[in-house]
Amino acid sequence: MLDQSTICAIATSPGIGAIATIRLSGNQAIEIAAQVFASPKKGKSLLTEKANTIHFGSFKDGGEVVDDVVISLFRAPHSFTGEDVVEISCHGAVYIQQKILQVLMKHGARVALPGEFTQRAFLNGKMDLSQAEAVADLINSTTAASHKVALNQMRGGFSEEIRNLRNQLLSFTSLVELELDFSEEDVEFADRAELRQLVEKIERTIRILKDSFSLGNVIKNGIPVAIVGETNVGKSTLLNALLNEEKAIVSDIHGTTRDVIEDVVNIHGTAFRFFDTAGIRETTDTIESMGIERTYSKLGQASIVILVVDLQNPYPVVFERINKIRKRVSKQTLIIAANKKDTGLPGTIKKLESMDLGNNEKLVFISAKSKDNVSELINFMQETVSIDKIGGEDIIITNARHYEALSYAYQAIERVLHGMDAGITSDFLAQDIRECLHYLGEITGEITTDEVLGNIFKNFCIGK
Amino acid sequence: MLDQSTICAIATSPGIGAIATIRLSGNQAIEIAAQVFASPKKGKSLLTEKANTIHFGSFKDGGEVVDDVVISLFRAPHSFTGEDVVEISCHGAVYIQQKILQVLMKHGARVALPGEFTQRAFLNGKMDLSQAEAVADLINSTTAASHKVALNQMRGGFSEEIRNLRNQLLSFTSLVELELDFSEEDVEFADRAELRQLVEKIERTIRILKDSFSLGNVIKNGIPVAIVGETNVGKSTLLNALLNEEKAIVSDIHGTTRDVIEDVVNIHGTAFRFFDTAGIRETTDTIESMGIERTYSKLGQASIVILVVDLQNPYPVVFERINKIRKRVSKQTLIIAANKKDTGLPGTIKKLESMDLGNNEKLVFISAKSKDNVSELINFMQETVSIDKIGGEDIIITNARHYEALSYAYQAIERVLHGMDAGITSDFLAQDIRECLHYLGEITGEITTDEVLGNIFKNFCIGK
Repeated sequence: MLDQSTICAIATSPGIGAIATIRLSGNQAIEIAAQVFASPKKGKSLLTEKANTIHFGSFKDGGEVVDDVVISLFRAPHSFTGEDVVEISCHGAVYIQQKILQVLMKHGARVALPGEFTQRAFLNGKMDLSQAEAVADLINSTTAASHKVALNQMRGGFSEEIRNLRNQLLSFTSLVELELDFSEEDVEFADRAELRQLVEKIERTIRILKDSFSLGNVIKNGIPVAIVGETNVGKSTLLNALLNEEKAIVSDIHGTTRDVIEDVVNIHGTAFRFFDTAGIRETTDTIESMGIERTYSKLGQASIVILVVDLQNPYPVVFERINKIRKRVSKQTLIIAANKKDTGLPGTIKKLESMDLGNNEKLVFISAKSKDNVSELINFMQETVSIDKIGGEDIIITNARHYEALSYAYQAIERVLHGMDAGITSDFLAQDIRECLHYLGEITGEITTDEVLGNIFKNFCIGK
Repeated sequence: MLDQSTICAIATSPGIGAIATIRLSGNQAIEIAAQVFASPKKGKSLLTEKANTIHFGSFKDGGEVVDDVVISLFRAPHSFTGEDVVEISCHGAVYIQQKILQVLMKHGARVALPGEFTQRAFLNGKMDLSQAEAVADLINSTTAASHKVALNQMRGGFSEEIRNLRNQLLSFTSLVELELDFSEEDVEFADRAELRQLVEKIERTIRILKDSFSLGNVIKNGIPVAIVGETNVGKSTLLNALLNEEKAIVSDIHGTTRDVIEDVVNIHGTAFRFFDTAGIRETTDTIESMGIERTYSKLGQASIVILVVDLQNPYPVVFERINKIRKRVSKQTLIIAANKKDTGLPGTIKKLESMDLGNNEKLVFISAKSKDNVSELINFMQETVSIDKIGGEDIIITNARHYEALSYAYQAIERVLHGMDAGITSDFLAQDIRECLHYLGEITGEITTDEVLGNIFKNFCIGK
């Protein structure tokens, strides 16, 4: 059931600005706006104005002018929410913004819940659920990569991919279910080889989408990077050098545990998330007291491990450190940052230079203190996940909910494949296909519950 | 010389919001917007669209979509600046806002200077200088009172008053100057008595305007309140009770000297500025060490002095404190807050109740700790400068620049009056009238310099 009330909220960033925009949406939006808006032109009323027009005048609280405003008028269904929408552009004083909200409420509007405008857009069929979710991602995007992925998703790229999958599945189902109707006659309308090819294609597409989540996740949340190394090799100096890169810190994210601080840094459009660096930054002794083992246990969460070694140590010492880490790093990229290159032992440098490197390994000689070669280290980091890898047409999943649904859909389609191999009856096949369709439908919101919607939109900001 | 470049800036509050607006103004505004905007409707171009219309489409950086946006189109002279203006409403990610600015710059716009949009509005004759100044005041208004005064000024109330004055002066001048033309013939076209009446009327109006500044200043910056009293009488408890009033703190203003902190509190639409309270809040000993004298020297800056006395003291002690302050408080309102009424000496309370109060004095028995009667104390504070006193039509000066100009104008008109009394010749009268006109013209910007304009607009925010 669609809520028929008219909602209002400040849509622009909170605080003082030159202008601010208050958005009003619902059946009564234009009527309410007409009551509080006075045009300098006599006899002019918003009620009779055309859609997509702009009107200058006064916003009034009874006889008193609250502000001179610009009204943008949208008529259903050609608006963001699909309802009648009025946007009120006022002078950006917090006082005025609040006052306008109060007056709108006095005239029957209520303050929107978080994400309620977008939720209405979804409920009114202006966008599907994954597009609605992308609106929030887009607003929160801080890098070129996260922006690109969210924008693609909002503009329907992902939705179309899911729609294609569902259509293919449906055509498969119709064939299978036709067989069911004639099951007593033991006919096979569908060419099994052709059907298998189709299901394989669907399975492959779902797998690629599902697997893109590991990339999507790092695009959205930053590529997790762990900096490890013994005491006094220069870890904290290196971290500071990286954090002070020109593109600067995006934000400090305080983790769930108080002692974990994550610094997210936007370097040339890619976000890197340096985690568990609190220990590094405090005293280096902390690491010792925590036990090297515990620090290393974090490595599994990293996409990139930067091992800092001290070139002032003899080669065997350095080599031992490297091997110790190598055992724990397999799938990730391991960047060996050979530090203090200016004061390093020539023998260590020479031997290190000729050391064999694995496919996932990089070696760079740096001086963290003088920031020498730190940019090369950054290049290595960027090669790992480059924004350029995000092809224009590639769909990348960034949302954990989508990942979960795709995982279930994948399990179902795998059962279909195995079922076909095992020659199970069409009715069982049909059941798995329906399950696959169900999970794909959850992504786009064709199948959804109030609870799911509530969970999605409660994390939106008010005004969106 | 009017700058012909096209300027752009983020007009909404900085930071993440559901939406953000980027404003573009100048000769090339629509042309630039047309280059970066792609409508979903084929063949549609912003260049040929009507004024005051809204357009949905994509904002593009070359081949790449930056965001789906809503464009509001204004055509000269019917816009805020009087130029062609395009407002781009995008998703409120900081990344997107910055990207859009970058793309606009790539296409020939430049980032606006602080207040440059409003400055152009002034230079294009959309508003006079005092109205332009009111735009900044309006955006920064935090109370009903400051909002009302700024809005009146922006909507031209003050400007019209000044215009009336100038017109009256001009008609006077024309008469006087007519006499000058015929000076050899020694005729007096103007009836001196009538002329004197006119000048007196002008003088009275300028004086009222000028004197309104003391009210306007407190409306704009808050009513300065000093809380004084001996050690341990409950000053800090009272201050906290006042600061914790429901309407809460507006802001902490750090004074020019590090040890002065001013708390501005908005109580029922009126801002009160409690100053020099740092000392009170630290240790009460501080006051002693600073010397009572030094604390009291601040009294002259206050509009309201709240003297806190301790009812647990014998009446003669309390009475002495009161008299000590009375000597220093003459024009201001003195509120005697007789504290600790629940545990006070009955004799002290009784005698205090029958104490004679001056016209500017109020007495209230309170318990700061239990907040008992603190609301009555607030009522007394509000009576001093109530928002209701700001009549709908009263013009109130809040701007120091206007005050200065009015003061000079007043001096000039006074010289005219004295000159008439002394029977000085018309040419001298005319000179003083011209000076008066000059200063009135400075207020509305009819007479101005680049330096004055620069000083005014540099304090605006960017985007306004």
